[in-house]
Amino acid sequence: MSEFKFNGKTVYYEVHGERGTPLLLLNGIMMSVNSWKPFVKTFSQNNRLILVDFFDQGRSARMDCAYAQNVQADLTAALLDVLALDKVCVMGISYGGEVALRFALEYPQRVERLILANTAARTSAWLRDIGHCWNAAAATGDGRLYYLTTIPVIYSTEFYESHAEWMKAREKTLVPYFSQPDVLSALVRLTDSAENYDVTARLGEISCPTLIISAQSDIITPITEQNLLHACIKDSKHVIINDSGHASMYEQPAVFAALVLGFANQAETRYEI
Amino acid sequence: MSEFKFNGKTVYYEVHGERGTPLLLLNGIMMSVNSWKPFVKTFSQNNRLILVDFFDQGRSARMDCAYAQNVQADLTAALLDVLALDKVCVMGISYGGEVALRFALEYPQRVERLILANTAARTSAWLRDIGHCWNAAAATGDGRLYYLTTIPVIYSTEFYESHAEWMKAREKTLVPYFSQPDVLSALVRLTDSAENYDVTARLGEISCPTLIISAQSDIITPITEQNLLHACIKDSKHVIINDSGHASMYEQPAVFAALVLGFANQAETRYEI
Amino acid sequence: MSEFKFNGKTVYYEVHGERGTPLLLLNGIMMSVNSWKPFVKTFSQNNRLILVDFFDQGRSARMDCAYAQNVQADLTAALLDVLALDKVCVMGISYGGEVALRFALEYPQRVERLILANTAARTSAWLRDIGHCWNAAAATGDGRLYYLTTIPVIYSTEFYESHAEWMKAREKTLVPYFSQPDVLSALVRLTDSAENYDVTARLGEISCPTLIISAQSDIITPITEQNLLHACIKDSKHVIINDSGHASMYEQPAVFAALVLGFANQAETRYEI
Amino acid sequence: MSEFKFNGKTVYYEVHGERGTPLLLLNGIMMSVNSWKPFVKTFSQNNRLILVDFFDQGRSARMDCAYAQNVQADLTAALLDVLALDKVCVMGISYGGEVALRFALEYPQRVERLILANTAARTSAWLRDIGHCWNAAAATGDGRLYYLTTIPVIYSTEFYESHAEWMKAREKTLVPYFSQPDVLSALVRLTDSAENYDVTARLGEISCPTLIISAQSDIITPITEQNLLHACIKDSKHVIINDSGHASMYEQPAVFAALVLGFANQAETRYEI
Repeated sequence: MSEFKFNGKTVYYEVHGERGTPLLLLNGIMMSVNSWKPFVKTFSQNNRLILVDFFDQGRSARMDCAYAQNVQADLTAALLDVLALDKVCVMGISYGGEVALRFALEYPQRVERLILANTAARTSAWLRDIGHCWNAAAATGDGRLYYLTTIPVIYSTEFYESHAEWMKAREKTLVPYFSQPDVLSALVRLTDSAENYDVTARLGEISCPTLIISAQSDIITPITEQNLLHACIKDSKHVIINDSGHASMYEQPAVFAALVLGFANQAETRYEI
Repeated sequence: MSEFKFNGKTVYYEVHGERGTPLLLLNGIMMSVNSWKPFVKTFSQNNRLILVDFFDQGRSARMDCAYAQNVQADLTAALLDVLALDKVCVMGISYGGEVALRFALEYPQRVERLILANTAARTSAWLRDIGHCWNAAAATGDGRLYYLTTIPVIYSTEFYESHAEWMKAREKTLVPYFSQPDVLSALVRLTDSAENYDVTARLGEISCPTLIISAQSDIITPITEQNLLHACIKDSKHVIINDSGHASMYEQPAVFAALVLGFANQAETRYEI
Repeated sequence: MSEFKFNGKTVYYEVHGERGTPLLLLNGIMMSVNSWKPFVKTFSQNNRLILVDFFDQGRSARMDCAYAQNVQADLTAALLDVLALDKVCVMGISYGGEVALRFALEYPQRVERLILANTAARTSAWLRDIGHCWNAAAATGDGRLYYLTTIPVIYSTEFYESHAEWMKAREKTLVPYFSQPDVLSALVRLTDSAENYDVTARLGEISCPTLIISAQSDIITPITEQNLLHACIKDSKHVIINDSGHASMYEQPAVFAALVLGFANQAETRYEI
Repeated sequence: MSEFKFNGKTVYYEVHGERGTPLLLLNGIMMSVNSWKPFVKTFSQNNRLILVDFFDQGRSARMDCAYAQNVQADLTAALLDVLALDKVCVMGISYGGEVALRFALEYPQRVERLILANTAARTSAWLRDIGHCWNAAAATGDGRLYYLTTIPVIYSTEFYESHAEWMKAREKTLVPYFSQPDVLSALVRLTDSAENYDVTARLGEISCPTLIISAQSDIITPITEQNLLHACIKDSKHVIINDSGHASMYEQPAVFAALVLGFANQAETRYEI
């Protein structure tokens, strides 16, 4: 349980494991350090695993006004300073992938390798309206309505069928959670901070080895978005996880973990073929 | 402008064109006879085009209580009686595809050929929660919230980009429309009528030539659902429209029209290859 | 049974049907007018169907030396002159799609609508080596070897399973056919004529309504090639036939016919959506 | 440089690295221990890497008559005995994936985890004819013809474009290699040994954690074949490598290595989600 101050506000983080390439995981919008609990053992076995709550997430500080998403990238850089780490391997999923891209653009010398799971280069007009939908639902203060607008689109039809009990438990936990005004206002601010996100024009600047992970049934950030990333990031590879929606780490944890561990830990990513 | 009574309630329909194979188009949930206006010329040129509003749609009667979706299939059969048509070629999209499947199962001798666009064999647990979301949004009475929960997921990211003006015009029209309590309550009943829809086990009974149309970026009824239809309907063909979401007729009208016209009007669907 | 002379050599063609939009079908490399026999009824019912053998195909003249593929486009223009047709709807498959593209570029005013089935914009380095393989097999004079190098890659695994008898009959017919030296030398010349085919840079010139048809399991001209066509041809639509290899007209005749008939015959291809 | 005798014949193998989960790689048909040279560093860093030449491959014995493919699985079991290893993680690609499946069925207690890259459950009628093609080409004794029938279909169009020099170098090496009668006869026997391969009916017996790797542009073993594997192997995950043909390890070495390393080395493959 560790924290530090950034811009005068608390940032919560955890470090697990003591050896190996440092591996930093950046959360999706509704996630927190706790979301990675099932993966801590796997990711810390041969790596120094670093988890962090962005502002308005988990145990980090709530903000009191709108902010630019880039503050989360700056917070990430500050965390590396605290840990005295020059360079890390960064994996970001969804909102965390957006911050990972901003981080790689602002602090290129600090990214060893980059893994972008279920990530887009921009908040498209379509995704912006999805954000408007979420925030309009939040404005009603109705936790169940917020659950219904945000959660189903994150999972695939297949996962819903095969994890019916799990989804019901999720609903039971999340509806009361989303009924808390401060939780909803934090989520609204997080969503707003991505409203004008668009790094498309700068993707050519990214030069570190990059792995782009798509999920076959991802609604929120469909494969077409990752095709764009792949076309614009020079040293990028692209892989597609089958039977998975947007929350690929939960729908296909073993494949997700394999890709992250394997890409982060292979001796080098260029082969003399 | 024609109507007849079914179960004591008004059914509105239109017939365009006087010759050729009768072609019946069944509406998606938020559609009406008017939605086909841009297609009337094309579809009535060599066909007798039949359009109809289901109960709770367009100019047909509003219902006053919950009902089973099958009533819409019975209404369809009654329409053919009124028109003194034994057999027609039926195209259904989304909710209309569900009714088309029910119709083909209940009145198999009345379907010459069947075209299922953006259709599933069942309301999956996932789609059921999407329906719950729509109805929870309707319960707030907020037209803009209903718009934001229902419309974006119907279109693809690509269409949103390329038809930005059109989408804005759509929002301007639909938000006030969705702000009318009777419109919302009709949509809620339509959604409820599909809540327990599942004809999977009976797909083997369908024996007429069937064309299954998927759209590459369909969120509401993803390709996996049409794969299931294709696997279970004996004499079925499967085609995928690129660059299109769930509202394939609007996103790719020329391809949609080509498939419907071409499949309905070819001399026969079996070839001596 | 009709023919005319072009460049002093015989061109064989057939016209079926008397009314409707003229529809010209251009053959794949190993095809001839006869290959369309199962489709004549369907395609001539509401269209004036025009079939033609390119030089070195079917009943048209054999050539005695290498030639540029463009001669086939010129031959096509000469045929329209003979028929006194200003404009036609052109469908080309594979080699025929290449000629269709050349024809649309050289004689843009003569193409009403363009349908490109299983077509690429260029003979890629990969496809060039496939051509070298076919010609090296032809050089052995062994009809069975030529059959085995050319035919399996044209069909999908699924079709092979479901049409085992048909494939065996095909082998029985084609092995003796491919054992004739003049047949092989004609096929070698046809293949050579496409060796340097590349119209990629000129695709932007094509302005007529264009339908691009891919087949999900097409080995010879995979979907990536049609993605390129679609990205570069302004007014193009893209559709993918499921359960089909390169010979889409034989693997999925009803879908193939629907697309061609529907796209050629709809009143217009632009809709006021 | 190590070898042992199996059935009285020499088997060549190599072991690299001394610690970590033993990782056994099984070759595709035209591969040998040498093919893995670019991967030895990566795969032996945290694993005991085991490479082996099947009979009729590399430095293992040439056979003098036809044999069942299962002998290669028995040879694999014998190798584990020689190394005194009870259980290993097995990765097989193509022919090596077939042997891996046979091995997992015959010696289930010896497979810790199974990785099947570009593998099918059966030699389909289509693949059988591809094999006939290769063997008919071999029968001519013409190394260039054998090269042209076997190599291009193994790579994707994209790889051919981006690795033009590499492909030319490959041709320069392989044409003389394929011109050696004993090489061709060994390849013919290997191909024949897979002629009647079909383990579809037994896939339900496989219970170890299994990762199925497809390549988007794989001609020889298309994704439909891996869909079948995935549907029938209980504890299987499925992932698709983009921009890759059949030789996925050469076309996308970093993604291939990531998947193998990550799946073999994660603490467990079941997560408490």
